[in-house]
Amino acid sequence: MASTSSRTGAAVTLRDVARVAGVHPATVSRALNEETRALVNEETARRVLKAAEELGYQPNPIARGLKTNRSYTVGVLIPDLTNPLFPPILRGIEDRLETAGYTPLTANTDNDPERELLDSQTMRARQVDGIIAATARRDHRLHDALLEAGIELVLVNRRQPDLPVSSATADDRMGMRLSVEHLLSLGHTRIAHLAGPLDYSTGLDRHESFHDSMRAGGVEPDPELVLVAEAFTEAEGARLCAQLIASGREFTAVAAANDLLALGCYDVFAERGVRCPEDVSVVGFNDMPFAARFHPPLTTIHIPHYEIGKAAGELMLERLQDGDAEPREIRLEPHLIVRGSSAPPRAA
Amino acid sequence: MASTSSRTGAAVTLRDVARVAGVHPATVSRALNEETRALVNEETARRVLKAAEELGYQPNPIARGLKTNRSYTVGVLIPDLTNPLFPPILRGIEDRLETAGYTPLTANTDNDPERELLDSQTMRARQVDGIIAATARRDHRLHDALLEAGIELVLVNRRQPDLPVSSATADDRMGMRLSVEHLLSLGHTRIAHLAGPLDYSTGLDRHESFHDSMRAGGVEPDPELVLVAEAFTEAEGARLCAQLIASGREFTAVAAANDLLALGCYDVFAERGVRCPEDVSVVGFNDMPFAARFHPPLTTIHIPHYEIGKAAGELMLERLQDGDAEPREIRLEPHLIVRGSSAPPRAA
Repeated sequence: MASTSSRTGAAVTLRDVARVAGVHPATVSRALNEETRALVNEETARRVLKAAEELGYQPNPIARGLKTNRSYTVGVLIPDLTNPLFPPILRGIEDRLETAGYTPLTANTDNDPERELLDSQTMRARQVDGIIAATARRDHRLHDALLEAGIELVLVNRRQPDLPVSSATADDRMGMRLSVEHLLSLGHTRIAHLAGPLDYSTGLDRHESFHDSMRAGGVEPDPELVLVAEAFTEAEGARLCAQLIASGREFTAVAAANDLLALGCYDVFAERGVRCPEDVSVVGFNDMPFAARFHPPLTTIHIPHYEIGKAAGELMLERLQDGDAEPREIRLEPHLIVRGSSAPPRAA
Repeated sequence: MASTSSRTGAAVTLRDVARVAGVHPATVSRALNEETRALVNEETARRVLKAAEELGYQPNPIARGLKTNRSYTVGVLIPDLTNPLFPPILRGIEDRLETAGYTPLTANTDNDPERELLDSQTMRARQVDGIIAATARRDHRLHDALLEAGIELVLVNRRQPDLPVSSATADDRMGMRLSVEHLLSLGHTRIAHLAGPLDYSTGLDRHESFHDSMRAGGVEPDPELVLVAEAFTEAEGARLCAQLIASGREFTAVAAANDLLALGCYDVFAERGVRCPEDVSVVGFNDMPFAARFHPPLTTIHIPHYEIGKAAGELMLERLQDGDAEPREIRLEPHLIVRGSSAPPRAA
């Protein structure tokens, strides 16, 4: 009998309790936790406890195993919130953390390593239990500073293979392989690559995979057609695309390291009367919001940003449960989305 | 002599010191403030102090006047960071606060009033000095809770005219007037309005101004052509646009209360073979990122979101300097941006 009732209880989720009590899941989580119950309105807490009891809700074993004496906040460092890939990541982090009663506190580091350290210090002063960082360069200062302070670190969207740190990313190599294979299968061989900054794992992995995937397809990449951006921005995409055209080297396609670099190409093509995809095909990377609404709609690599955020939240909860566990890398699969910006080369 | 040197000093900004010292402005601010100097690397602090002395930098009188015993953090409550208007607002808030040594900590309230109160409580527990909220409904719970706790509140993008609270917004009435005047001047009279939720000041002000501006232009608005969305989303725009078409009422233009509602119309038009702007003109509101890249490029009302964020930061610094001062409303001017989605009606 006991095991039956426990099995029934396990099927009831925190969201079910929230629905019955008519409150947000974060409220349920706080109301059920004795340490945080005071944060919830008394009448609301009563309603939540009643709903949980009626439904036979059993708290999440991960949340239950967490050490006490927590602040129940996790800092999130984002390099630039106006880059449209970060809001969905943040949303995923929040949605995962809140079911365990954690609130994320976000800071925008403006892509500045100095600012990143300052923000992490401010968060430390605010007693966050851990920090999820989307900012990591191939630079170990943040990692070392947090390690020293005993604050858990999880990377999101970026990884640092040479450090013992958990990370949630897309499989960036696989993504660039899908982009190159798509263009090769259309008949392109003169493929340019606009790479992202190589001091980010996203830039570096996609850059290396571009070369590997071209060679795997039997085409030696032309080094003159590979240009490296200083930032993942439309302005950098336009600058490099103009440089590519000025070089006079023939190319019929561009595999860009992100969508904003691809949009920079659109701008230069529009100025110069180059038609996309008739004259040059363009493939982006990320499937940013509104990518299907551009003119032409952008062929790109879909990255599950929301799920990457959720995975990062999950990894943080694991670290908070057991800080001595082996770090884990979670890599989610991207997929190709063919829209209007890619077509066979004109000669074909 | 003293006054000359003081005048020279006043021209030197914190950013100048940052440039000379080769650090971020936030670092300068912390290094110059004795309370926060310990947060900065010792060698960096020395470099900043040297640069400030050499340049004759005088700290900002507002920052100087701030009470001590501060946490130097300000909470920012955002309803939904995946709505592209919020990241630039946040950026403006950060840029203004950081020059006074403050760090913003952001939370996403998921458009949930319960979550908004919870997040504000978490921030209170983290001892923020004030809260800037973009979430305010015409509901006084957040305001009352913060007032009781002695935490300063500033509203951004939303206002609450019936409460004594500072706010930084666009002049939403003027913006909708520009939209209506543009459509009337093209010769439209059968103009539909997709309104935002009326429990937000943004929805309500634009809705009222739509009616006032139509009448000022000599056209009585048709109540059947005014539909109210439940959220500022593409899905709601599509739902209302389909309803508008199904009603069978003639209309040649849509004045939408924001760009996402306008994009929802694009989707329904594409499905039904309605051409924009040939059959129906559409005007959005906000000039969201990438609005010029849509197909057709969206005619819209440009709102200076970054500047609104900066103004909100400024208002918060004023409150922190003198909590007894009269609250102020800052309203920034929007302007019309004509792109490809508006044209004279076919009959004209």
